[in-house]
Amino acid sequence: MEFRKALGSFATGVTIITTRTADGHPVGLTANSFNSVSLDPPLVLWSLANNSGSFDAFKQARHWAVHILGADQEELSGRFARRGEDKFAGLEVGNGQGDVPLLKGCAAHFECRTVSQYQGGDHLIFIGEVLDFSRDEAAPLVFHGGKYAHATRRDPPTQKPRSAHLAGSFGEDFLGYLLGRSHFRFFSQIRPFLQREQLDDMEFYVLSTLTLKPLLSDDQIAEGMAGVLDERRQRALDGLVERGFAQRSDGGYALTPNGREAALHLIAEAKAIESQVLERLGDADAAILKTILNRLLGVVDPNAANVLWQQNGSV
Amino acid sequence: MEFRKALGSFATGVTIITTRTADGHPVGLTANSFNSVSLDPPLVLWSLANNSGSFDAFKQARHWAVHILGADQEELSGRFARRGEDKFAGLEVGNGQGDVPLLKGCAAHFECRTVSQYQGGDHLIFIGEVLDFSRDEAAPLVFHGGKYAHATRRDPPTQKPRSAHLAGSFGEDFLGYLLGRSHFRFFSQIRPFLQREQLDDMEFYVLSTLTLKPLLSDDQIAEGMAGVLDERRQRALDGLVERGFAQRSDGGYALTPNGREAALHLIAEAKAIESQVLERLGDADAAILKTILNRLLGVVDPNAANVLWQQNGSV
Repeated sequence: MEFRKALGSFATGVTIITTRTADGHPVGLTANSFNSVSLDPPLVLWSLANNSGSFDAFKQARHWAVHILGADQEELSGRFARRGEDKFAGLEVGNGQGDVPLLKGCAAHFECRTVSQYQGGDHLIFIGEVLDFSRDEAAPLVFHGGKYAHATRRDPPTQKPRSAHLAGSFGEDFLGYLLGRSHFRFFSQIRPFLQREQLDDMEFYVLSTLTLKPLLSDDQIAEGMAGVLDERRQRALDGLVERGFAQRSDGGYALTPNGREAALHLIAEAKAIESQVLERLGDADAAILKTILNRLLGVVDPNAANVLWQQNGSV
Repeated sequence: MEFRKALGSFATGVTIITTRTADGHPVGLTANSFNSVSLDPPLVLWSLANNSGSFDAFKQARHWAVHILGADQEELSGRFARRGEDKFAGLEVGNGQGDVPLLKGCAAHFECRTVSQYQGGDHLIFIGEVLDFSRDEAAPLVFHGGKYAHATRRDPPTQKPRSAHLAGSFGEDFLGYLLGRSHFRFFSQIRPFLQREQLDDMEFYVLSTLTLKPLLSDDQIAEGMAGVLDERRQRALDGLVERGFAQRSDGGYALTPNGREAALHLIAEAKAIESQVLERLGDADAAILKTILNRLLGVVDPNAANVLWQQNGSV
């Protein structure tokens, strides 16, 4: 329906709102109709469809709690959005004002006492006074256009990219510069480990490509190397064969046991560096970066090495 | 104040709400207290501080319009958030139901008739029936934690990264793989232009680094090359000197007129490719990608070539 779609243009956070029925059962649902109302007194609001299964429980409740979900709580959001399920099963639940069930690990929570209920068409609007609340620094779970979204802080518009001396040259925000510099700087942290094994960059690219499949044809290696130049790739392959890290078979190239060992050792070091870098970048931005690099690869590399990767598991 | 900060954990879109005073003056303000209420009848709500300069205008208005802002409207949001200014100056403004001023270029808009006003502490809550609305596909402007944010759709959690055949090797979402592949695939679209000039990758990196300053020392070139290996860099520099694209002076290296011309020509081609790629990625994701790659560079490359770029303008 068009009206619903238009409303979806307004991005929101995602909340889980909980209460307890008169006979003591915990009740909860996912809602994005939350918003703040007043600072003094502290009031918030949300609205609930008249035909919701939890309608009576909330209508009669004197207390309820709003939990604002963090970026890592999409699964919890889905659980509380479905009907029927025992939503609280297996969750660690605390007790708030009015014995309201409190969920752990949220970006913020507000414990409220109902001060007004207003009928608003097919929904009931709840206004609550905030009796207690908490907040945690966390990236938010966001909902927009009927789908979950990531959000990341914008840089202030004053922070303009710098430019080259030569007019007409690149600016600092040229994508090729950002990608190249990110790649080479990240890779330069891995390089000391390669040098210990006396491998150069290209040999390492080939070595790690050879971990993708038990046996790779020339074409597959070329595909795996993502457009890196031919002659240097061949030289690197020859180098790996000479070192006893790879061997040429009928159908193509394969790692030797020594090559496998060297590859796994180096890849473990590289993964450790990745962890450090991503930790400093932050989980939320790390997830967004990977999401968008994958979309970028969908643009610049539509085949995305489909022939090389396996869908599930590993041997 | 802690309560305000906790409320800020809930991400929202950003709206501008407009009306017209009894004597015909357009009034507007930025608000993020908007939310939907009811589908049938179509109702929305928002709330306004009792001490707002526009309080009387909205309290007396029978009609108002909500404009949901898109990712490219941060400036408009700022304009309508400030007091005093003639907010509508220079804007193209339409006329909605009840002669309400309508702004152009928004992600969605709702023309409303006030059906209820409820006092909610230090704010007044407006409930409006939606008489007309429109929607445009647009990335949203988002507000979170007191700051503007970007949002981008999440990929469904079922879309798991693929893995290598060799257990313990990289997965498809290893950052080094994503960065390397993005860099090399993007660069492979530029390479045909280099080949026409008989330049290899490394020579092009050096050539474009030389556009950054009139004269670059060896150290500056090394810094500009972001950790790319020494010997190959030196070979590329020597190659450019041989070709008459660069010359060695007392303090370092500089482009020759021929080198400048070749660099600008190639950079123009590279920028055209960037435009095509970013257009296919979409403006919103393009902005987010650049933002986060810059943050990544802050982690892996804290100096970020500060010695090379100039802050403003170009010569």
